[in-house]
Amino acid sequence: MAFEIDEQFMREALREAEKAAEVQEVPVGAVVVANGEIIARAHNLRETTGDPTAHAEILALREAARINKHWRLTGMSLYVTLEPCSMCAGALVLARIDRLIFGASDPKAGAVGSLMNLVQDPRLNHRVEVTAGILGDECGKILKDFFKKRRAGMKYEP
Amino acid sequence: MAFEIDEQFMREALREAEKAAEVQEVPVGAVVVANGEIIARAHNLRETTGDPTAHAEILALREAARINKHWRLTGMSLYVTLEPCSMCAGALVLARIDRLIFGASDPKAGAVGSLMNLVQDPRLNHRVEVTAGILGDECGKILKDFFKKRRAGMKYEP
Repeated sequence: MAFEIDEQFMREALREAEKAAEVQEVPVGAVVVANGEIIARAHNLRETTGDPTAHAEILALREAARINKHWRLTGMSLYVTLEPCSMCAGALVLARIDRLIFGASDPKAGAVGSLMNLVQDPRLNHRVEVTAGILGDECGKILKDFFKKRRAGMKYEP
Repeated sequence: MAFEIDEQFMREALREAEKAAEVQEVPVGAVVVANGEIIARAHNLRETTGDPTAHAEILALREAARINKHWRLTGMSLYVTLEPCSMCAGALVLARIDRLIFGASDPKAGAVGSLMNLVQDPRLNHRVEVTAGILGDECGKILKDFFKKRRAGMKYEP
């Protein structure tokens, strides 16, 4: 049951990733869930905004904090299609997120198990529960398709 | 000479830290320098904005990218009064900042030498040159004074 709910929210994160692909952004999407409901959703917008911090997770956390009227997001979960990088993993700890659920692993830059595990570092003042691999194949496929088309000089058509 | 220039820019970062203290924020300040000139300056605004990512470094990087009209900040330096946390260290790598200069070390959460060194991780696709300890005593003192007064139940008066 918990697994089905995780898949349901990850599918919403995947929809966000599709929106990123539609504007030629690397397709990563995220949603923040509080009390069983999505309160924030975002997708990678680095190129569109020209903002180096505009990863899906950062934008979703900022939106959730805006809705929550406080930076402390205790009790909330973040779903993201790709394993967070060190910036985003650090932000999850700072926001005191309870749970992180991600889809595909990122062997090149992942900071939640691949290169390191920043969200469960016992030296930091908060640790995040992690579930990996939810809809992992689908989350990975949208990225692979995007880069394959980009290498071929074609725009990605979702 | 380079040392004097670093001190000069760190003094501007300290001015930003003072502005944070004036609004009861943990006093950390940052400036971004391009071609020998400050193009962005910011201070910690986590409580004021309610944004968990509103550290001085993130705000300064975002402002620099806005001025630069691109997320890639090659050739630029970031000066910050406190050793960056993992979120901010990750953001410096993503923004392709050339050089990081910081004042005081952060033994509890510092990710540029204290707990780890994210900006010089050979597995990531960019590395940052680091100079530590510029005006370190002054940068540390403003933080110590802030927390001392806060523990005593007094507001910080810079």
